[in-house]
Amino acid sequence: MVTELTSPPLEFHKPSIEDEGLPAHELLEAVTAKWPLSVMRVLAQAQGPLRFSRVLERVEGISQKVLTQALRALERHGLITRTLYPQVPPRVEYELTPLGADLLAQVLSLWRWIQGRLPEFAAAARDPSRV
Amino acid sequence: MVTELTSPPLEFHKPSIEDEGLPAHELLEAVTAKWPLSVMRVLAQAQGPLRFSRVLERVEGISQKVLTQALRALERHGLITRTLYPQVPPRVEYELTPLGADLLAQVLSLWRWIQGRLPEFAAAARDPSRV
Repeated sequence: MVTELTSPPLEFHKPSIEDEGLPAHELLEAVTAKWPLSVMRVLAQAQGPLRFSRVLERVEGISQKVLTQALRALERHGLITRTLYPQVPPRVEYELTPLGADLLAQVLSLWRWIQGRLPEFAAAARDPSRV
Repeated sequence: MVTELTSPPLEFHKPSIEDEGLPAHELLEAVTAKWPLSVMRVLAQAQGPLRFSRVLERVEGISQKVLTQALRALERHGLITRTLYPQVPPRVEYELTPLGADLLAQVLSLWRWIQGRLPEFAAAARDPSRV
């Protein structure tokens, strides 16, 4: 079950993006970007650690380079863990952290909210005066 | 009051980003990007139409060029209206649509959720194995 948000009133006092610096906003942008979000979804679906090559297979259309960048960004924000097993060849596994799973759930809620209103967005894009 | 989401279970059946094409995801990225989000916040705070020059003043640090791009993207997605008054010099006013206001409220909810967990994110970034 996804809890649907009721629209809060439009109050924009503190904390605001400007007042608090950019870390929350940086995270918001990082996690809603296409590839990191797709990678997080694949790791969530796996419900456990995945090797680089498995993630590469499961995220459709991603390149090795872009996957490497996405994994580094997610790791840097504490959303995934990276575990290196020193064997030959070295094995590296990635796993969603609980915090990453929570954030992903929030973002997917928003994504579904948008998804459910796509006809409205399409209509608004055609004629913004009607919405 | 901002309704706080409870974490939904990690189910990732349809609709998924890949299955449904990219419009929802495109919107998600467009609206969580720094400048469009700041512009929407300024328009929401104004609670009415604003001229280009007023928006430019109120969105701290934005350039004319970037503001023009942000406004066009928001208009294209039906999130703001652009009204041209044919006078000399021409007056152009921008206003959030109700749909834009709803979406902004959703995104700000997510943003506040992240904001409230910044210490956890910071801790996780330092040591992902502990979250």
